[in-house]
Amino acid sequence: MGTSTKPRFSGVIAPLVTPFGDDGAPDPERFVTHADWLLNNGCNALAPFGTTSEANSLGLDERMELLEELVDSDVDPGKLLPGTGMCSVADAIALTQHAVDLECGGCLMLPPFYYKAPSEEGLFRYFAEVIESVADDRLKVYLYHIPPIAQVGFSLSLIGRLKQEFPDTVVGLKDSSGDWANTKSILDAYPDLEIFPGSEAFLLDGLRAGAAGTISASANVNATALRDVYDNWKNPAADDYQAKITAVRKVFQSQPMIPLMKAIIAHYRHDPAWARPRPPLVELDQSVAAAAIATLEREHGFRMDFRES
Amino acid sequence: MGTSTKPRFSGVIAPLVTPFGDDGAPDPERFVTHADWLLNNGCNALAPFGTTSEANSLGLDERMELLEELVDSDVDPGKLLPGTGMCSVADAIALTQHAVDLECGGCLMLPPFYYKAPSEEGLFRYFAEVIESVADDRLKVYLYHIPPIAQVGFSLSLIGRLKQEFPDTVVGLKDSSGDWANTKSILDAYPDLEIFPGSEAFLLDGLRAGAAGTISASANVNATALRDVYDNWKNPAADDYQAKITAVRKVFQSQPMIPLMKAIIAHYRHDPAWARPRPPLVELDQSVAAAAIATLEREHGFRMDFRES
Repeated sequence: MGTSTKPRFSGVIAPLVTPFGDDGAPDPERFVTHADWLLNNGCNALAPFGTTSEANSLGLDERMELLEELVDSDVDPGKLLPGTGMCSVADAIALTQHAVDLECGGCLMLPPFYYKAPSEEGLFRYFAEVIESVADDRLKVYLYHIPPIAQVGFSLSLIGRLKQEFPDTVVGLKDSSGDWANTKSILDAYPDLEIFPGSEAFLLDGLRAGAAGTISASANVNATALRDVYDNWKNPAADDYQAKITAVRKVFQSQPMIPLMKAIIAHYRHDPAWARPRPPLVELDQSVAAAAIATLEREHGFRMDFRES
Repeated sequence: MGTSTKPRFSGVIAPLVTPFGDDGAPDPERFVTHADWLLNNGCNALAPFGTTSEANSLGLDERMELLEELVDSDVDPGKLLPGTGMCSVADAIALTQHAVDLECGGCLMLPPFYYKAPSEEGLFRYFAEVIESVADDRLKVYLYHIPPIAQVGFSLSLIGRLKQEFPDTVVGLKDSSGDWANTKSILDAYPDLEIFPGSEAFLLDGLRAGAAGTISASANVNATALRDVYDNWKNPAADDYQAKITAVRKVFQSQPMIPLMKAIIAHYRHDPAWARPRPPLVELDQSVAAAAIATLEREHGFRMDFRES
C-alpha cells in the first residue's frame, strides 16, 4: 500500500498541443520538439492527449504512434500522463494498456462521454473493466473531470467508490469544472489524492489547500510563469505571481483557447503550420491572433523563447 | 446527378442492438441472427452502430468485425446504413471507407461530439474531410442529428451547405431531436433529402409531410406494428395504427430505452445474455423488465415471435 501514498505527479503539467502537418496528419517531429522544450522550460511533466491536445480528434492509431515517438525520444515516460479515456471501454483498454506498456507514469482518464447522465454504477463498471482488464500494478489512473465539455463527470461519491475499490490504482484527479468550490470539496474529502485544478487561476489556492499542481492549457505557452507560483507558493511573493498568471489567463480566454495556444506557438516559432487545428476546431484569424499576442506582450511582458530548441 | 434523386432507404429501419457474450465481447452470432430476423419481420433496412446499438461503446475493430459478419451473412449490404461518425475525423474516415468498401447502402454520420458548440465552419470541414478522403461515388451520407445525446447537432444552414457542396453524397438525415417542429422545418427546407424521424411517434405525420420512414430504437422489437403505419399511411386505418405504436412507445420510454429493448429480446428469446449492455449502460432489474413486458402484453397485446429463427 505504501506506493499509493507517494506522489507521482506534481507541479506544472502541460496538456500537450498536437501539431498537424500540411497533409493534416499529426506531426511527430514538431510534437516531440515541443514536448522536449516544455520539459526544459517550466513543465514538471506532460499530459499528452488531453482536451487541449485535440485528443478526441485523433485516431486510435495516431495516438499510439505519437506516444511511441515521445517515448522513443529522450522524454522520461515517467513524466507522461497521457489521456486514455474513451467513449468505448474497448478503446480505453487498448490505449491504457499501451501507455502502461510504455511505462508512462499515469493515465488521465475521461469517463465515457457519449451517453448523458449515465448511472454511477455504469461509470464505476467502466473504470473497473479498464483497471481489471489491464491488470497491472504499474497502472496509475487520474480521473479527468471536465463537465463543461464531456458533460459526464465524477461525483464525490463515484470518486470515493473508485478510490476505495482500487486504492493503489486510482491516485489522482484533474478538475476542469472551473468551479473552485468543487475542487475544494474533492481536496477536503480525499486529501490523499493528487488533485490538479484544470486552470492556473486556482493554482495558489489549490496548493494552499493541498493540490499537487495544475494541468492547464496555458502551460503550453506560459509554464515558467506558472512555475513561479508553484516554486514559491509558501513565500510572500506567491500572491503577486498568482495575480500575474491570472491576468495573462484572461487574455488567453478572450479567444478560443486551443487555436490561440497554437497560434502563439506558431508566432514565436515563426512556423505557421503550428496554428492548424483539426476539425471541428478551426484556426484563429491571423489578425485576431496577432492582436491577442500584441496585448500579451504590451500589457503582460509575455514572450516565448524558442531559440535554444 | 440523377442518382441523387433516387431514394435509397425508406420505411422502418432498426438501429440494430448489439449483443454481448459472457466475456463482454460483441457476439456476432446473436447479432447476425437478430439482423436477419428483423429483415424478415418488418424492417425495411437496418442501421447498425447507432445510439441504440451502443456503437460508441464499441471499439473501432469491433465495429468493423461486426459489419463484416453481417455482410458475410446473407444480409444485403444495400440495406445497411451503419453509423460511421466519430469524434475523430481519422476514425470516421476509416469506418466510412470500410462501410463503402463493403457496399453498404449508406452511412449514418454523427457530427464530432466532444467539443461543444463547434462552429458551423468546423463541422462543415469535418464532413468535407471525410467525403473528400473517401472520394467514392458510392458513398451516401445520412446526417445524424441527436442533440439530446450528442449535444452537437445540425443547423438548417449547415445541412444546406453540406447538401449544396456534396449533392450526390449528402442525401438524408435522421432527426432524433424529439422535436417535430425541427423535423418539419428540415422537410420543408430540403424536400429532396431522405428524412427519418428518430421516433415512430412522428412516423405518420412525417410520412404525410414527405419523410422517408423512421429509424427508431423500437424497430428492434416492434417493427411489424411500425410497418402497419408505413404500409397503410395513405389509408383511413393509418391513424389507428399510429395511435397503437405511439401508445406502445410510451411503455418503452417508461424505462431506459436501450436496456429495455435488450431485456425484451432476452425475454422472448429465452436468452438472458441478450439483456447485457456495456458500460456505462447497465442492465434493467429483472423485476422492472418483467413488469414492463407484462404491461406491454396486457395493455397492448405485444409479443415477439422468434420461433422461426
